Amino acid sequence: MNNHIKRQIHTTIKKMSKPIVGNKLFTNVPKDVWTLTGEIAGKAKADPKNANREIISLGQGFFSYAPPQFLIDAANKAMSSNPLNNQYAPTRGDLQLIDSLKNYYNQFYQKNLTNENILVTTGANEAILACLIGILNPNEEVIVLEPFFDQYISNIKIPQGKIKYVTIHPPKNLSEGKHTGNDWKINYDELEAAINEKTKILIINTPHNPIGKVFTKEELIKIGDICYKHNVKIISDEVYEQLYFDDSLKFPRIATLDPKYADITLTVGSFGKAFCATGYRVGYIISENAELLKYAASAHTRICFSTPHPPQIACAESLNLASKNSYFEDMRNEYDGKFQKLMKTFDALNISYTIPQGTYFIIADFSKLKVPFDTYHFPEDIASKPKDFKLCYWLAVEMGIITIPTTEFFTEETISNDKTGIEYLLRFAVCKTDDYIDKACERLLELKPYIS
Amino acid sequence: MNNHIKRQIHTTIKKMSKPIVGNKLFTNVPKDVWTLTGEIAGKAKADPKNANREIISLGQGFFSYAPPQFLIDAANKAMSSNPLNNQYAPTRGDLQLIDSLKNYYNQFYQKNLTNENILVTTGANEAILACLIGILNPNEEVIVLEPFFDQYISNIKIPQGKIKYVTIHPPKNLSEGKHTGNDWKINYDELEAAINEKTKILIINTPHNPIGKVFTKEELIKIGDICYKHNVKIISDEVYEQLYFDDSLKFPRIATLDPKYADITLTVGSFGKAFCATGYRVGYIISENAELLKYAASAHTRICFSTPHPPQIACAESLNLASKNSYFEDMRNEYDGKFQKLMKTFDALNISYTIPQGTYFIIADFSKLKVPFDTYHFPEDIASKPKDFKLCYWLAVEMGIITIPTTEFFTEETISNDKTGIEYLLRFAVCKTDDYIDKACERLLELKPYIS
Repeated sequence: MNNHIKRQIHTTIKKMSKPIVGNKLFTNVPKDVWTLTGEIAGKAKADPKNANREIISLGQGFFSYAPPQFLIDAANKAMSSNPLNNQYAPTRGDLQLIDSLKNYYNQFYQKNLTNENILVTTGANEAILACLIGILNPNEEVIVLEPFFDQYISNIKIPQGKIKYVTIHPPKNLSEGKHTGNDWKINYDELEAAINEKTKILIINTPHNPIGKVFTKEELIKIGDICYKHNVKIISDEVYEQLYFDDSLKFPRIATLDPKYADITLTVGSFGKAFCATGYRVGYIISENAELLKYAASAHTRICFSTPHPPQIACAESLNLASKNSYFEDMRNEYDGKFQKLMKTFDALNISYTIPQGTYFIIADFSKLKVPFDTYHFPEDIASKPKDFKLCYWLAVEMGIITIPTTEFFTEETISNDKTGIEYLLRFAVCKTDDYIDKACERLLELKPYIS
Repeated sequence: MNNHIKRQIHTTIKKMSKPIVGNKLFTNVPKDVWTLTGEIAGKAKADPKNANREIISLGQGFFSYAPPQFLIDAANKAMSSNPLNNQYAPTRGDLQLIDSLKNYYNQFYQKNLTNENILVTTGANEAILACLIGILNPNEEVIVLEPFFDQYISNIKIPQGKIKYVTIHPPKNLSEGKHTGNDWKINYDELEAAINEKTKILIINTPHNPIGKVFTKEELIKIGDICYKHNVKIISDEVYEQLYFDDSLKFPRIATLDPKYADITLTVGSFGKAFCATGYRVGYIISENAELLKYAASAHTRICFSTPHPPQIACAESLNLASKNSYFEDMRNEYDGKFQKLMKTFDALNISYTIPQGTYFIIADFSKLKVPFDTYHFPEDIASKPKDFKLCYWLAVEMGIITIPTTEFFTEETISNDKTGIEYLLRFAVCKTDDYIDKACERLLELKPYIS
């Protein structure tokens, strides 16, 4: 019997047999927001209404341009200058990069950082997963502040952790006026009530995606005190740390505010955001508590073994350089300019928004956009979703503008009880060239007739 | 109260408090073989006996030389030619690399591979972890053939899987004569007996680290039939696939032998081994069963999000090139030459070994080496370990030769019941320059007076 016949028999048998059941985490999971908006972008491109215009994508947070030339040059040099730079890096990170990170972060930390306080990871996502796998035993709990970055959720579920959500409450009426990150507030009684004897970790993200909030020193002290009191470790996701725009705030880092917070905190950073190179996958974890960091390091060794080597050296040299010149300040100024353009456009459209204190995202309220929710033809996937997915779909197909619906960052419970209007929020990413932002603003202004 | 005083108080309180307890998987774990041999190498370097000679390291399997220039050139070009090559790759892999992999593997697979049959991962280690996290629910079982690569064990434990070991039985007397991979045999009754209703996966590694065994077609058919009969999926770790030296065997791939095996198999590959670039971290999974592969893909997205982008494009172009020229054949010939040198040396020393059919490792029996086990001063870590760790230590300190003890690849039960002599096996890696191998052989010949 040849293999062709074998295959036919096998295919027939297979059709009769049960479907594969893998990890329940990944079985019958609805499409995530990234998949759905990808599909929306595809539909928008294929729609005749967009045949003669460019699709404007302010959706996913990836850069439309190259990293600085010094980063690319350093990567090239790394590969050619020493054969061993192309081989496994030490599992905890290339020593040159660990040195650069120590030198850079010593300006913020109170303790003099040593190699044991640094772990290089394969991007910030793997950093957070390594912390969670390193620390959590099954059924232990993690406090997640909502809105949340969706990767946290599955990263907690992989080591069988449980999630308790604590809401960062929006301002009372998102559709009127302008707000800032300070108007999005934690209720500290709610935070403390969410903690029990199984609570092991709290995850905080500052600057915050998608709100653009930079947590104030006062807020961080309240959070730090509660966590310290209850022996809860903190994962502080600070991947947007170079992007803050409110000079009065600067950027407070919880691990640097008090030695007792430093002792319970794992701070996660990423070069993808700092050097516009999301494809290099170099992240890191800093903790003054070397014993705590060891758990993340053990997990990291088992997850990825070691992190890509040439980009580590490129990041080391680039960080040294950027510490001496005005690269990070210039970047902040550039983003500030992009945000100003977008905010001016929203103002012209009478669209409310939260003024970004940080990140490269801005959330804006589209409740005034006259989308015929009841009569418009939405695909099935979208029809069953909250209104922001419908707004997103309509904007893509009718106007050629890709955005991200933000209800994906909230729990169903919060969405169904909400009276502030979170269902109308869309997220825009500004990590694009100025020309592109100009084109985006022009396209957005075409919405004028559709806004009540 | 200033932060300095706060810190002092905090340090005092901390000393009184309980130690951190993280994931039990990573708590009070004894040092692994890589850490221990790293420390042994350090001790060897510091020992006055090695003051005037180079330490010869045939321990860990990393290359002492650069990848082929075409790979480095392709990586450079990727970063400079298109800004987006520096940004996130698609989570399932760069499309150019997926195309190259389809083109290359279509020569082996019976089905015409499509994009849904390929997943690019951040190295083979993450590939295996993604398969295990994607498929396993807590307490489901995985069959591991011993000797095993140690990373498998923690990768199974991360998603709370359980391990059942099935031994690849060594030849009867490892200290006499020469053996081949064919002399290391699975008892298929034992394999079948290890399967129960909780068994979800079997992991096979061929060419096999550390034995150097290439599983024969007949062996793979027996394994495939048993797995198919009991609905057990197969992870076939084929990262050394380009390295096989027995022309009569070629390299049989289980997924290509029968459509019914193809349907249950996830095959793992890696460019680190194929292109001598272990620091690039580009691996992949191929499966004719797209539905099965989806589980690994979902897990991969949550583990690493996406794989470093520039090296993916470099690997794509290099694979296209290597498919057209004799790069892989030349590489096999070079390794064969290195192995011949080492085997000639072992012959001269009357040391038994298993002739490598594949990989860049060779295991040899050092039971004839006159090491004074009872009187020699071993560090505590080593003194409590099996004899191969002591042989390894003695060789490092007394002779300046670094090797890997192989009992780490076996279970304690197998070691304590063993009558074949696995406790005397050391693993040597030959992924070094010819000059280096020559120096290694010269140093090994100095053992002559110590061999009985």
